[in-house]
Amino acid sequence: MKICHYNEGLAGAVVGEKLYPIGDALMKAGHLKPGHTMLELIERLANEPAAMKLARFAAQTGSSVPLAQVKLLAPLLDPPAIWAAAANYKAHQAEMREKMGSSDRSDLSKDELMAEFFLKPASSIIGPGGSVILPRISKDVDFECELCAVIGKTARHVSEDQALDHVFGYTICWDFSQRDPWGRGRQNTRNIRKGFDTFTGLGPWIVTRDEIEDPQDLAIRVEQNGKLAMSAHTGDMICGLREHIRFLSHVMTLKPGVLITTGTPAGVSKLADGDHLRGSIERIGEMEVAVRAER
Amino acid sequence: MKICHYNEGLAGAVVGEKLYPIGDALMKAGHLKPGHTMLELIERLANEPAAMKLARFAAQTGSSVPLAQVKLLAPLLDPPAIWAAAANYKAHQAEMREKMGSSDRSDLSKDELMAEFFLKPASSIIGPGGSVILPRISKDVDFECELCAVIGKTARHVSEDQALDHVFGYTICWDFSQRDPWGRGRQNTRNIRKGFDTFTGLGPWIVTRDEIEDPQDLAIRVEQNGKLAMSAHTGDMICGLREHIRFLSHVMTLKPGVLITTGTPAGVSKLADGDHLRGSIERIGEMEVAVRAER
Repeated sequence: MKICHYNEGLAGAVVGEKLYPIGDALMKAGHLKPGHTMLELIERLANEPAAMKLARFAAQTGSSVPLAQVKLLAPLLDPPAIWAAAANYKAHQAEMREKMGSSDRSDLSKDELMAEFFLKPASSIIGPGGSVILPRISKDVDFECELCAVIGKTARHVSEDQALDHVFGYTICWDFSQRDPWGRGRQNTRNIRKGFDTFTGLGPWIVTRDEIEDPQDLAIRVEQNGKLAMSAHTGDMICGLREHIRFLSHVMTLKPGVLITTGTPAGVSKLADGDHLRGSIERIGEMEVAVRAER
Repeated sequence: MKICHYNEGLAGAVVGEKLYPIGDALMKAGHLKPGHTMLELIERLANEPAAMKLARFAAQTGSSVPLAQVKLLAPLLDPPAIWAAAANYKAHQAEMREKMGSSDRSDLSKDELMAEFFLKPASSIIGPGGSVILPRISKDVDFECELCAVIGKTARHVSEDQALDHVFGYTICWDFSQRDPWGRGRQNTRNIRKGFDTFTGLGPWIVTRDEIEDPQDLAIRVEQNGKLAMSAHTGDMICGLREHIRFLSHVMTLKPGVLITTGTPAGVSKLADGDHLRGSIERIGEMEVAVRAER
């Protein structure tokens, strides 16, 4: 099922070119209260089989509206955390060494690499068709485009074998990144560099786990102004999602709605005012972002 | 007013040794719904003068229970973000250079230093009387004890003069920190090192802004096992809270409930199983934490 967030905060299921208002059906049946958030909906669907069954039924038999007539929002606006993997594709490590003088990580173990996981603030989220705003303070902002997992069942001390049982679904994450340092220093944390308003794009919806047999077998493509900028495959991650969930769940409790974005492949590129980005991940969908300079 | 969170998630005001259930009064008057969170309460009190007036009235005239009979919780469990200042006291910079080989930051401008702001995950929060659990993976966890501001009014592009108008109140933040690297690497982000479950202590309550004329004029003290470990003053911060709010609000939108913790003074010290910590900040109060090793 493709679960979306639309208009004034409603929950829907997308089937082809139609949208089924599954939030309504879940409220009528008492699974959710009016005014519920997508975070509550995800927690409920992931943990109450009856709620998931009803949502699937409503997405097959209920009334629908044309998808083209709604405005899609970011599928989640208040994730408890957004954990982002750093430097998780060898080819991206190489391009960052060249562009930024980043350190050589070829000697690191997987756990040492995952100890570079960083947080992004929820205040940075934009949705499908949104605009990333290039801040005046920076002359160098790149796009990054990543497979992102949404946790459904609370995970703590989870093994790699059990890891994917805790995933609710998948979405696309744009991790926009300021590359130039603040002033003369080289001290900007990723939290700040990647934490500007509009610097996290999520969408176009969440595809539930049952539709993606293997998260390490998906093609990722990005076009910048109609030209292919990134063509990659999630099989090339250094640490896979199962390892991410194992690692993070040994540090902390991962609650429903926590996002784990798995790092960008190579092909990141500097953005300019007026650019247009179109990213797609196999089996998930496509998400567009406009680029604008701060006025 | 000292606003606390207690028992099964209720909101109270502490006056001397008594607790007034102001959440009840606010619900009866329709300012809050049953099942509201502290985040909603803070947003309401900070932005609706009538709600704040009613809460103050209930804290003077309502019925009360003895404070000793309730269990205090962390005043906020779901902050939209926890932003933490790094290396914000010269004497702490010096002790970190000695202990960790940290870089010399004496040459950095204030904005360059603030570009080191980092995030902590909400999953790491514990409350008054809670226990910090030392993870098996680490042999070196320090305490840090800090003045923490709670945002009340949404802040974006705010000047230093206006900064404190956006503060709802103040609390104590314990920022527990793993110091030893993961494996052989030196790559652990602060998000991971300071993001273990139980690594953020908040409490004992939030003191509203009107009771603290100047956040840069407060004494901080910590006793570890009854022995004075930290004795400091918020006037010694390199960047003050007004500068923090100005800086962060030029990067992102700070919503009600966002926490800004202002960095630890010198005196941080390694923790051992069985330790007992008692921290206090002038005009706020005192908060105790027990230390236990992970089993």
